[in-house]
Amino acid sequence: MSELRTKAKAAQNVARELAIKTTEEKNQALLAMAEQLLLEQEYVLKENKKDIDTARSNGTSESLIDRLTLTAERLADMADGLKQVAALSDPIGESLSKNTRPNELEIEKVRVPLGVIGMIYEARPNVTVDASSLCLKAGNAVLLRGSSSAIHSNIALVQVIQRALEKTTIPAEAIQLIEDTSRETASEMFTLNEYLDVLIPRGGASLIQAVVKNASVPVLETGVGNCHLFIDRSAKPDMAISIAVNAKTQRPSVCNAVETILIEKTWANEHLTSLLDQLAAKGVSFVGDEEIQALDTRIKPAIESDWTDEFLDLKVAVKLVDSVEAASAHIYQYGTKHSESIISEDAANVATFLNEVDAAAVYHNASTRFTDGFEFGFGAEIGISTQKLHARGPMGLEALTSTKYIVRGNGQIK
Amino acid sequence: MSELRTKAKAAQNVARELAIKTTEEKNQALLAMAEQLLLEQEYVLKENKKDIDTARSNGTSESLIDRLTLTAERLADMADGLKQVAALSDPIGESLSKNTRPNELEIEKVRVPLGVIGMIYEARPNVTVDASSLCLKAGNAVLLRGSSSAIHSNIALVQVIQRALEKTTIPAEAIQLIEDTSRETASEMFTLNEYLDVLIPRGGASLIQAVVKNASVPVLETGVGNCHLFIDRSAKPDMAISIAVNAKTQRPSVCNAVETILIEKTWANEHLTSLLDQLAAKGVSFVGDEEIQALDTRIKPAIESDWTDEFLDLKVAVKLVDSVEAASAHIYQYGTKHSESIISEDAANVATFLNEVDAAAVYHNASTRFTDGFEFGFGAEIGISTQKLHARGPMGLEALTSTKYIVRGNGQIK
Repeated sequence: MSELRTKAKAAQNVARELAIKTTEEKNQALLAMAEQLLLEQEYVLKENKKDIDTARSNGTSESLIDRLTLTAERLADMADGLKQVAALSDPIGESLSKNTRPNELEIEKVRVPLGVIGMIYEARPNVTVDASSLCLKAGNAVLLRGSSSAIHSNIALVQVIQRALEKTTIPAEAIQLIEDTSRETASEMFTLNEYLDVLIPRGGASLIQAVVKNASVPVLETGVGNCHLFIDRSAKPDMAISIAVNAKTQRPSVCNAVETILIEKTWANEHLTSLLDQLAAKGVSFVGDEEIQALDTRIKPAIESDWTDEFLDLKVAVKLVDSVEAASAHIYQYGTKHSESIISEDAANVATFLNEVDAAAVYHNASTRFTDGFEFGFGAEIGISTQKLHARGPMGLEALTSTKYIVRGNGQIK
Repeated sequence: MSELRTKAKAAQNVARELAIKTTEEKNQALLAMAEQLLLEQEYVLKENKKDIDTARSNGTSESLIDRLTLTAERLADMADGLKQVAALSDPIGESLSKNTRPNELEIEKVRVPLGVIGMIYEARPNVTVDASSLCLKAGNAVLLRGSSSAIHSNIALVQVIQRALEKTTIPAEAIQLIEDTSRETASEMFTLNEYLDVLIPRGGASLIQAVVKNASVPVLETGVGNCHLFIDRSAKPDMAISIAVNAKTQRPSVCNAVETILIEKTWANEHLTSLLDQLAAKGVSFVGDEEIQALDTRIKPAIESDWTDEFLDLKVAVKLVDSVEAASAHIYQYGTKHSESIISEDAANVATFLNEVDAAAVYHNASTRFTDGFEFGFGAEIGISTQKLHARGPMGLEALTSTKYIVRGNGQIK
C-alpha cells in the first residue's frame, strides 16, 4: 500500500476517536505541541536550513526564500498561535437548533467534525502548524501535503507535533504529513473519496484550479481574488485615496489586495491626479482603457487580461465609470466574487452596491484588506473560501465542521 | 452554441436579477405557476400520456409507470405544493450574525442565493415542479435535466411554468429545461463551472456516483442510504418490533428505509421469533450470518454485499451483536452515514450511540423513515444530503442559499 493510502487509512481509523475527544484533551494536545516546538527549535531550524540552501542553490527569489524561512521568532509566533487556538471555544457538540414536532419527535442539530481533511498547500511551513491546530481543534484528522521546497521543514515540524501528541491522549495519526511530494500523489488525493471527507487547496491559482477541476472529493476552494474598489461621485477624496493606497500597497501579493479601481467620472476629473500621485509614491504602476489614459499620461494601455487577472504586484488597472450600476456590471463581468468595496457618501448608491454585488465580502468605506479570519473575529483562519457551498469568505473553526441531526422519540413510526 | 450552453448563459444572466427580487414578486410567480398548471391540465396530461405509452411499449414495470403517471389529482397536489412554497418564509436577506469589531467595522452575515443550480434527475415529473419552486423561492435560476422517459411531461410542465412566469416580473429564463436528454449533455453539465454554481443529482446510486466522480461543479450529493436499526438488550419488544416493521416495510424503495437490523443477543433469544413473524407477515425475507441463522430457519445466508447495499425491497439483513459498541462498529464499517436508529431504554447506551454514530440523522426510539424535510418541519425538500459539506440530511430552502459578508466602515485601512 502506498504511503498516501496507508496514512489516509490510519487517519480515517482515528477520526472516529477524535470526533469524541473532549475540549480539554484537544487543548492539552495543542499546548503540548506549542511546548515541543520551542523545545526542539534547534532541530527545526537546522532542517529548515536545508530547504533554504536548496532554494538558494536553485536560484529562488529572495521573497520566496523569506516565506520559507523559519527563525526563533517565527517559531515562537507559531507556538503562540497554537496557544491561541487552544483558547478558542470548541465548536464540536454545539447545539445549533432544537425543535419538537407535533408528533413529539425532538429534532436537534449539533455540530460534528468533518472527519478527515486533506490539505494541499505551497511553500510556507507555518501553514503546516496552523492547519494542524485548526483541524485538531475541530475534531478532525488531517493529511498534510506540502510542497517539495519545504519538505525538510515540514517533516521536522510534523515529527515535533507527533512527539508532542505522544505525550497526550490524542493519537499521533491525527496529524500526518505525506512525505512523497510528487504530482502523482497529489492527484491521487483528488479522488480519494474512500478516505477523505474534504480537500482544502491553498496556494496559487494553478494549484487551486487543478484541484477544483480534477477532485471528486468535495473541495473548499480558496484564494483567487480579483478585487475591485469603486470610488463613487460622492466619495470623500482623502478617505478614497487612503483606502486605495492601503488596499493596493499594504500587501500586494495577497488575495484581498485590490487589482482594479473603478472611478466615477466627475470624481476622477477633480481627484485622479492626487490618487495616482499617492499610489505612484508607493511604487504603483497603472494600466487603463483609452478614456482614462486621456486624463493622465502615467496610465499605460490595458490588455484584456489586465481586467481579469490578479497582478499580485504594485500594479493597478484603472477605469472610468458613469454610475454605481456601471461599476457593478464591470465587477459582475470580471470579478472573482472575493472582496469588493464602494467608497461613497450616497446612501442609495451604497445600498445598491452592497445589495447587488455578489461576493464573499462587500465593503462600504473600508479597505478590502480586512477579508481575513482574524480581522473578522474568528481567532484563526484556514483560508478564504471563494465558492458558495458550505463556507464563503474567511474560514475559521466552524468551516471545518459539519452537522448531524439527533432525533429523540418514544416509539414514533411513520 | 449548444442548447445547454445557451440556456446556461441565459440562466446566469437572469440570476443577478433574481437574487434581488422581492419575496412578493417570487410568491406571485409561484401562485401564477399553480394557477397555470390547473388551467392547462389537459395539455399536460395529454403530453404525459405520450411518455406512459412509450414506457408501456418498452415493457417498463408498472411501479415505474406509476411513478411517471400524472393525473388530475396529482396535478392538483403539485399546485398545492407550489402554494405551500409560496407560504414559506423567504430565506434571502436574512441576517445570520452581526458584530462590531474593535476598529468599528460592522460585519454582518446575510443569506444570498447560490446563483444557478443544475438539477439532474430521473423519472418522476413532480420533481420538475418541486425543484423549480424551491430554486425560485431561494432566488436561484435552475437548469433542469430530467430523464428521457419523462421528456414530454417535463417539456409540457416547463412550458406551462414559463407561460405563468411571463405574466409576472420573474423572467422565464429562471426555470429552463434541457430538452436534449443525451448522456453527453448531462456529462457536459458536470464541468460547466463557468455557468453553474452547484449541481444536485437526484436518482439512483449510479447517477449520483457518476456526478460525484466526474463533476468539477460543486455537488450536493443526495440519496444513498444503507440504514441500520439497532435493537438493544433493554429495548421494549413491542416498540422495537413496531419500529422495525415500519422502517423496513412502510416504503421499502426509499433511502431512509432500514436495510440491516442489528440485534443484541439476549434480546434476540427472547424476541427474534416475534420480530421475524411480524416482518414476514408483511412479506419481508431475511438474510444473516451463520450465528443468527442458527436461531431461525427463515434466515438465509448473507453474502458480503448484503451488508453494504440498499435492498430497496422487502428484504432485510439481520445480525446478532454483543453490545452498543459492536453495533456502532458494524455501522461504521458498512453504513452510508444516512440514518441510524437505536431502540433502547438504557440511557448510557443511548448516549453512546447518539454521540458516536456518525450519520446525517441518528435516532433514539423512532423509525428512520422520519429523515425527510417535511417531517423535520422545513415545509419542503429538495433532497437528502449524504455529504458533510454545506448541508447534511434533509435539505429545504436554506440548503439552496449561500451567504455574504456585508462590512460597513468609516474609512478603515489595515
